[in-house]
Amino acid sequence: MFTGIDRRMSRMFAKDGKSLTLAFDHGIDGYHTEGMATPEKTLREAIAAGADAILTSTAQMLAFGDTLKNVGVAVNMDWFYGDPTPLVKQAMNLGVDMGKIIAFTGPEGIPDSIRKAQHLSAICRDYGLPLMVEPIPGSFDNKAQHTPENIAMAARMACEIGADVVKMQYTGDRESFKEATTGIFQPIIVLGGPNRGDIRAVLTDVHGAIAEGAVGIAIGRNIWAHKTPAKVIAAMNVIIHGGGSVDDAMKELN
Amino acid sequence: MFTGIDRRMSRMFAKDGKSLTLAFDHGIDGYHTEGMATPEKTLREAIAAGADAILTSTAQMLAFGDTLKNVGVAVNMDWFYGDPTPLVKQAMNLGVDMGKIIAFTGPEGIPDSIRKAQHLSAICRDYGLPLMVEPIPGSFDNKAQHTPENIAMAARMACEIGADVVKMQYTGDRESFKEATTGIFQPIIVLGGPNRGDIRAVLTDVHGAIAEGAVGIAIGRNIWAHKTPAKVIAAMNVIIHGGGSVDDAMKELN
Amino acid sequence: MFTGIDRRMSRMFAKDGKSLTLAFDHGIDGYHTEGMATPEKTLREAIAAGADAILTSTAQMLAFGDTLKNVGVAVNMDWFYGDPTPLVKQAMNLGVDMGKIIAFTGPEGIPDSIRKAQHLSAICRDYGLPLMVEPIPGSFDNKAQHTPENIAMAARMACEIGADVVKMQYTGDRESFKEATTGIFQPIIVLGGPNRGDIRAVLTDVHGAIAEGAVGIAIGRNIWAHKTPAKVIAAMNVIIHGGGSVDDAMKELN
Amino acid sequence: MFTGIDRRMSRMFAKDGKSLTLAFDHGIDGYHTEGMATPEKTLREAIAAGADAILTSTAQMLAFGDTLKNVGVAVNMDWFYGDPTPLVKQAMNLGVDMGKIIAFTGPEGIPDSIRKAQHLSAICRDYGLPLMVEPIPGSFDNKAQHTPENIAMAARMACEIGADVVKMQYTGDRESFKEATTGIFQPIIVLGGPNRGDIRAVLTDVHGAIAEGAVGIAIGRNIWAHKTPAKVIAAMNVIIHGGGSVDDAMKELN
Amino acid sequence: MFTGIDRRMSRMFAKDGKSLTLAFDHGIDGYHTEGMATPEKTLREAIAAGADAILTSTAQMLAFGDTLKNVGVAVNMDWFYGDPTPLVKQAMNLGVDMGKIIAFTGPEGIPDSIRKAQHLSAICRDYGLPLMVEPIPGSFDNKAQHTPENIAMAARMACEIGADVVKMQYTGDRESFKEATTGIFQPIIVLGGPNRGDIRAVLTDVHGAIAEGAVGIAIGRNIWAHKTPAKVIAAMNVIIHGGGSVDDAMKELN
Repeated sequence: MFTGIDRRMSRMFAKDGKSLTLAFDHGIDGYHTEGMATPEKTLREAIAAGADAILTSTAQMLAFGDTLKNVGVAVNMDWFYGDPTPLVKQAMNLGVDMGKIIAFTGPEGIPDSIRKAQHLSAICRDYGLPLMVEPIPGSFDNKAQHTPENIAMAARMACEIGADVVKMQYTGDRESFKEATTGIFQPIIVLGGPNRGDIRAVLTDVHGAIAEGAVGIAIGRNIWAHKTPAKVIAAMNVIIHGGGSVDDAMKELN
Repeated sequence: MFTGIDRRMSRMFAKDGKSLTLAFDHGIDGYHTEGMATPEKTLREAIAAGADAILTSTAQMLAFGDTLKNVGVAVNMDWFYGDPTPLVKQAMNLGVDMGKIIAFTGPEGIPDSIRKAQHLSAICRDYGLPLMVEPIPGSFDNKAQHTPENIAMAARMACEIGADVVKMQYTGDRESFKEATTGIFQPIIVLGGPNRGDIRAVLTDVHGAIAEGAVGIAIGRNIWAHKTPAKVIAAMNVIIHGGGSVDDAMKELN
Repeated sequence: MFTGIDRRMSRMFAKDGKSLTLAFDHGIDGYHTEGMATPEKTLREAIAAGADAILTSTAQMLAFGDTLKNVGVAVNMDWFYGDPTPLVKQAMNLGVDMGKIIAFTGPEGIPDSIRKAQHLSAICRDYGLPLMVEPIPGSFDNKAQHTPENIAMAARMACEIGADVVKMQYTGDRESFKEATTGIFQPIIVLGGPNRGDIRAVLTDVHGAIAEGAVGIAIGRNIWAHKTPAKVIAAMNVIIHGGGSVDDAMKELN
Repeated sequence: MFTGIDRRMSRMFAKDGKSLTLAFDHGIDGYHTEGMATPEKTLREAIAAGADAILTSTAQMLAFGDTLKNVGVAVNMDWFYGDPTPLVKQAMNLGVDMGKIIAFTGPEGIPDSIRKAQHLSAICRDYGLPLMVEPIPGSFDNKAQHTPENIAMAARMACEIGADVVKMQYTGDRESFKEATTGIFQPIIVLGGPNRGDIRAVLTDVHGAIAEGAVGIAIGRNIWAHKTPAKVIAAMNVIIHGGGSVDDAMKELN
Repeated sequence: MFTGIDRRMSRMFAKDGKSLTLAFDHGIDGYHTEGMATPEKTLREAIAAGADAILTSTAQMLAFGDTLKNVGVAVNMDWFYGDPTPLVKQAMNLGVDMGKIIAFTGPEGIPDSIRKAQHLSAICRDYGLPLMVEPIPGSFDNKAQHTPENIAMAARMACEIGADVVKMQYTGDRESFKEATTGIFQPIIVLGGPNRGDIRAVLTDVHGAIAEGAVGIAIGRNIWAHKTPAKVIAAMNVIIHGGGSVDDAMKELN
């Protein structure tokens, strides 16, 4: 059956079913530098450069509503308190297209974050709002837990607890990513992580992920902390929507 | 403050702020001929031809969701029973962009239809759903009531009771339409009425309305009951989005 | 105990406890001429000229919110359908200061209009919204019913069914008004009725009403249908807030 | 679209868009000395001296409702228990113009206080009540955390979690304040902190904040714990509404 | 505006505005000796002896409803779980006149007890039920915290979080009580504490409190644990309603 979740989800993707989502919700965690320090300017440039969707806060959705009106918008719900219903209702009222929450999985993760993601998913579905779950084995800092096997397990758990889209870590190479994504039964969008200061490396990962079946990306700091976010977006779109190679994409950065 | 009503409303319009909305909600009233008899086919052709939005039923929204996912969708709420909240909640859940209701105004109208439109507007606003009100002096059949003065009063009443968009009758000529729209403080979209079998006449009206400040049209039978709806839409878009003349538009119909 | 009704009510009055309220809700009933045809312009002039409050529609409150932000706003709830709660919630959400409803009293009135006013009053009080009730013996057209005795009875009924303010007809002269207002245990604001085209007559009534204890006026057509509404307001304020005579007031109209 | 949040927010500001808000909610935390020990007297003097708005408790709003009826009123919601909805409903019912809550940000802050502020914001918006968020890095006592960088990050987080107004710490000098406020996308009101016993120092800070774009202040102890609160308010207004210098302002204190 | 809170509150007081309230809610905390072990008998005697109101449990209100029907009844809500609404609704349904809750204030208190009292107050007010708050610095056992300064701060906080009546500790002497009650902006009723076995001492405190502005008492164990509760009540009433001295009062105990 076609549902509101299908309709909203489609707004996060271009007509080819792929999505370059700019992750731009870091202000909630206190990021306030580079492109994040001039939020509306960065959003305008990113959208002009071809971002299909923006992952941000409800507050930006309101403050920059006019700028954001022709792109998909997902909002961060990581910090919900007690009952997430007020956040979900507010998102629905504002015309948000998707929610997003992190779950820290595995023996060294945070069980409550998994429970909260599942709880939020059930409430979002009652309203027709899709939910992106970002499963991280252990924690962001606990790199030892970020093995391909754990990333795969984490992605599977994200599906099982109610993700409509999985915001998944790239495993580092195509072969392990192909294996890690086998059986992940919801669409996969890869995340970017900290600014690596190496655009070719980021593009290589994006290329590998798309080549192995990811339907898009939700990358933040490697875009907005770059000195020319618009060029990074253009480069990524060569790969995501254009089917180009990393070398093709790198040309956009000159 | 930017609101969900602003965001949803923008989905009904192209980036130039104008809208060609195909009115396609006649099935609810028993229409089941010409293009209405093959709904999904007509919708596909209309969208391919450049319709910005579709006014239809919640049922079509569900049945033809994939077809409708990249256009604005307004749904008919004329027939609500008792409390319209379930209809509004369903529309919100499905990702509908606007509701629509008729109000029969004037001394020969139906006072309850005005009260119902005001009531529906208050509920829609609570959810962030914009509402299109279609004010008709007297009734559709009571043509004697359709004077420019009565049309103006009806449009004014539509604004006052809570329309976010007024679906207004054309008064027949530019001069009277200009006068009738003075002081109408919400955006105006003109309706089409019964199939006239005279496309040039329809296009002349569309041209007059747009020239005098209407932001679009919501026309049904003169499009979907035509033998080539796609051509009619293309012709109307020459005027609405292209700023062309009636003669320019007529070329699309050859 | 001080309540939200007291706080909201005070916004409708100047610091001297008197109020010149411009009745400007006639658009709902189809009025669309003179100052009503250019609503925002008329509102701006009226406020600049010293109107303390405006009685209008929720729609104008939204459309002209910036213009109205420094005056008290009452909204017309005459046309509620079924359950008025959505209208009351919307008014509360928007920061409206008072509701208003008509009740047609007496043997030739409309009993349901009295029931509806009482029903609305109970709901408004639950939310902390004051309600202005406008009691009219019989109907607006049924002039034979508009005797001082009937006007007094109507005002008393308005109090008894839950008016926080009574929008009362003037009885024509001070003596009968004094008698008619005896025992009316809520504050009285006098209404204006149809445009009389005779400002001195209107001002004489205003003077008589204020002299006999009315705390203000809520007059519409005799202001907004005048060719210089701002001058009429200035003239009325000579009486209402300045304690002046009719002759004093008339000077404002030269 | 104009909303109730816009209307209520405007009541907290004078017509020039600036606000001298007296912070007077310290009684909730047990302050009961100087001007706080004679609350109604202090409120009367502050309002007579030109305070545009008062930040206080719902209880004072009720107890001193008549005194407060012509100024904007924000109420403290720091202490909400479980679901803040009853506090928000009570505030709405009473005609309160804004809520207020503290969030302790940064690595040494209280994550739950951030979640609670976001949760409260979503509920307030559902009712149309604006929310002032006061972000404090770490805690009030953890002065080491109060660097310009941390104050900027805290203010940014306040915006992102749903502040309609940010009650921000002054960074100590104009240059650092200018930098700290860059990218803060909601209006800024500066707070005062503990009584410094040095009015010139306080006025210098107020002057610096206003000069660098703050739209007002919400200062408490440096006003109500002073021996002549009315003079302090007059002095601050020389700067806030009068555009005067610190020297100009100091003249009010003689 | 007169409200249901005003009406209910008046039932707790005699016509002179003073109240001898028998605190009789100790059964909830496990007291089951002396007069508490024969509840209905004690209530009957207390009422016959002149108690104006009883502070008890909802359960006693039901069990001894006939006995209690001509006195004011406040009910203990200290133990509410999660959402107090069911307790408040039950109290309203039963015709209870006031709720009562303890808040442990100050640095050694229980912050959640303050939050709960504020939360309960907002819900009670929504229903029109007055609330008595009993603020205790630290805890009942933490006597070191019971200084006049802390008692004053506690009483102030009780007002600020929504008490309609403050059930306040006596500070030990008139001078310090006078100072402690300055700026306490809600009516004060003094509590009794543990059975002191020294009626003259208790009466001296009652006399001091009433002399310095308390509007009554809510004393329990020093009444119901006495061997002749009726005589204690008669003695207290000599002071409270009769304006007598301690010596006058002591005559009732012979």
